[in-house]
Amino acid sequence: MKQLKERVYEANMELWRRNLVIYTWGNVSEIDRAKGVVAIKPSGVPYDDLTADMIVVMDLETGKTVEGSLNPSSDAPTHLALYRAFAEVGGVTHTHSPYATAWAQAGRAIPCFGTTHADYFRGDIPISRFLTPEETEEAYEANTGKVIIEAFEGRNPMYTPAILTRGHGPFTWGKSGMDSVHNAVVLEELAKMGMWSLSLTPGLGELPQHVSDKHFLRKHGPNAYYGQKTNR
Amino acid sequence: MKQLKERVYEANMELWRRNLVIYTWGNVSEIDRAKGVVAIKPSGVPYDDLTADMIVVMDLETGKTVEGSLNPSSDAPTHLALYRAFAEVGGVTHTHSPYATAWAQAGRAIPCFGTTHADYFRGDIPISRFLTPEETEEAYEANTGKVIIEAFEGRNPMYTPAILTRGHGPFTWGKSGMDSVHNAVVLEELAKMGMWSLSLTPGLGELPQHVSDKHFLRKHGPNAYYGQKTNR
Amino acid sequence: MKQLKERVYEANMELWRRNLVIYTWGNVSEIDRAKGVVAIKPSGVPYDDLTADMIVVMDLETGKTVEGSLNPSSDAPTHLALYRAFAEVGGVTHTHSPYATAWAQAGRAIPCFGTTHADYFRGDIPISRFLTPEETEEAYEANTGKVIIEAFEGRNPMYTPAILTRGHGPFTWGKSGMDSVHNAVVLEELAKMGMWSLSLTPGLGELPQHVSDKHFLRKHGPNAYYGQKTNR
Amino acid sequence: MKQLKERVYEANMELWRRNLVIYTWGNVSEIDRAKGVVAIKPSGVPYDDLTADMIVVMDLETGKTVEGSLNPSSDAPTHLALYRAFAEVGGVTHTHSPYATAWAQAGRAIPCFGTTHADYFRGDIPISRFLTPEETEEAYEANTGKVIIEAFEGRNPMYTPAILTRGHGPFTWGKSGMDSVHNAVVLEELAKMGMWSLSLTPGLGELPQHVSDKHFLRKHGPNAYYGQKTNR
Repeated sequence: MKQLKERVYEANMELWRRNLVIYTWGNVSEIDRAKGVVAIKPSGVPYDDLTADMIVVMDLETGKTVEGSLNPSSDAPTHLALYRAFAEVGGVTHTHSPYATAWAQAGRAIPCFGTTHADYFRGDIPISRFLTPEETEEAYEANTGKVIIEAFEGRNPMYTPAILTRGHGPFTWGKSGMDSVHNAVVLEELAKMGMWSLSLTPGLGELPQHVSDKHFLRKHGPNAYYGQKTNR
Repeated sequence: MKQLKERVYEANMELWRRNLVIYTWGNVSEIDRAKGVVAIKPSGVPYDDLTADMIVVMDLETGKTVEGSLNPSSDAPTHLALYRAFAEVGGVTHTHSPYATAWAQAGRAIPCFGTTHADYFRGDIPISRFLTPEETEEAYEANTGKVIIEAFEGRNPMYTPAILTRGHGPFTWGKSGMDSVHNAVVLEELAKMGMWSLSLTPGLGELPQHVSDKHFLRKHGPNAYYGQKTNR
Repeated sequence: MKQLKERVYEANMELWRRNLVIYTWGNVSEIDRAKGVVAIKPSGVPYDDLTADMIVVMDLETGKTVEGSLNPSSDAPTHLALYRAFAEVGGVTHTHSPYATAWAQAGRAIPCFGTTHADYFRGDIPISRFLTPEETEEAYEANTGKVIIEAFEGRNPMYTPAILTRGHGPFTWGKSGMDSVHNAVVLEELAKMGMWSLSLTPGLGELPQHVSDKHFLRKHGPNAYYGQKTNR
Repeated sequence: MKQLKERVYEANMELWRRNLVIYTWGNVSEIDRAKGVVAIKPSGVPYDDLTADMIVVMDLETGKTVEGSLNPSSDAPTHLALYRAFAEVGGVTHTHSPYATAWAQAGRAIPCFGTTHADYFRGDIPISRFLTPEETEEAYEANTGKVIIEAFEGRNPMYTPAILTRGHGPFTWGKSGMDSVHNAVVLEELAKMGMWSLSLTPGLGELPQHVSDKHFLRKHGPNAYYGQKTNR
């Protein structure tokens, strides 16, 4: 558990160093699937005050705390829903990073406008629907997970490890907590460049499919040739 | 008085560290309601030169200086008007932070476009009307307080602790000076994300009411469950 | 001369610290009217390498170097023209700061949209006309001074110590070199906030005159009451 | 080789210090034409981890590694194509800097809107066409070089040492690796200011030709008078 908590602490601090969060506006978790536990940032603790000891460990199935004395992030049920539905996800990040949140508030998916996007994410970054009043009342955070999963029907979540939750902000995921933070940083850059591209060319269309495919596949899959063999 | 001045000094410096002010473009005050005094930044002193000793203490009712040798901020009469009208306010911040000021100059209230907004502020961030030539001539700063109070008729100022003064810039308030600075930082983020959301979706509407309510009430009121019990 | 050069060096470095210049994209000068000399940054020297010794001192009337072994800034003839025409100017700054330059490139004066503007500058920030091919050929930099002066016919240059030179960028001035840098920083903020205000309210009009007057006059002239008596 | 690798390392780190790259999103190379070799950043190595030892040296003609144990940047074939076609190029930089990339994604060349542009680049910053599916399939990176060269038919690449590759991002070049980084920084500023100018004046036209010429020629060619004789 100690190593898991250290890793989750480091991933949370990376989020802060990369300037994607202020105050308590974000959280990172990571799963240990062998032990069936998820470690996550505690709720409402400013990044300045965070220590590895404060990280809360929850049971994947019940969501009950198995280690730690603080309340887990209020978004914990969303994280747990993603771990349960997406078997390959190792880490989850949630932020209110401003460019991605602007798209989420605007109610728009982020189209694949360029190769920077295609290098990381296949197709657009989808946007989930608003919860109904009933879903909100019943279990707001868990149902936020539900509508994210809904938006990925027919899509591979590991090929597009990010979503905008409508009116709220982004969730990203990855092989580990740190990897999900990396994807959160990339998403924020794409949200920024996409907004600017649209201001230059209103109604801009997506990158041609053969270019998207080329960029995605030179970094992912069996024929990838980007990077060193060890870091692919 | 010493502690009050230290607290006001720290809150002013926080405003500067958070990059909401340059030169002398802002001020924070805090009230001691038991003693009936308000401590505030002196007028025209750059943040680089400010010390706790320079903080000016004024009588709440008369506005006269009771401690300190410098002139209080020229906006002091606005602060005093807010303390007199809003009994729960413990601290007040004024800035010319660029995104919020852009909205104030544009003459637009900031709609509640997302959950980040709903987490902190109930409903839109209102904008006060321009003073008339007579109000300007008579007592510009005190009447700036008057039109702020006017804009809150029928609204709870502690549920929406911020306003844009038309053509001028934001005022925020809170339980303490430091809390009002926190709200000034949040307001600037909302002003930024709101402007960007509008550029992506011109004519964007507000967040559905049931989502706003959910976010506001999970952080405020008797059923709040965000954070730790001690920091709610 | 030593003190003048030190002051000009410090003002140039302040421009760099305030992030208004990269590489060699700016210059500050200051005049000693008693001696009839102007000190200015040398041409093409990056701020990282600048020392007080490199500052070049020129004769106000002839523009010839009276101290220093480097070439003065290529914009020196513009500075000299301003000192000759505007008797109260003590320092001049030129930058390519991005927001002000965007307005200069767009060919638009910056209207007075808010009190931040009115606190420093009376009326709009004017924009000078393009030089004709003949004026460009004959004496580009001196004639840049000429069209600035033209744009101030009937206006007090000390009430609006800034201009946008069309297609080029801003010049500001003030009581000293450092004061002209201060005005360059303020202008950049106004250019930024003005652009954002226009994006929120296209076609936005100017601040009502009685509000502009109030703000300008509480900081300038015999009835000023902003700040401490010593720094007004 | 050691000096060349040191220089390429320094140029790569300068790219990072100037905030034009995050993670592995860029690369700088430099050529030694006497030896017929090109040194370049290795593929997929984060800037934080980069050392001069890791720099890869390739043969100009064959592209084969002649020194170094890591894979060269996946963009290496683009760099090599530029060195082969443009005899005066000494260094090449590729980034995904956000403003320039926004223009590349938007499919627009950057017009010469101001003197900052004219000081460095003659005419617009061109944009290359998309590769066809066949060109993409056959040799994506080498053909990216091909379409860049195509876009410079009839233009002097040393007068406009920059291009936007459509849907991808900028390439810049110069006399050395460090000089190409300098041009990448300038391009990003121009992309930023150009986008803002267009938002202020939609449909904005280019700078008059006589002004562009004046600025370009006061810094370049036999009659240049900007800077010191030694740094022209």
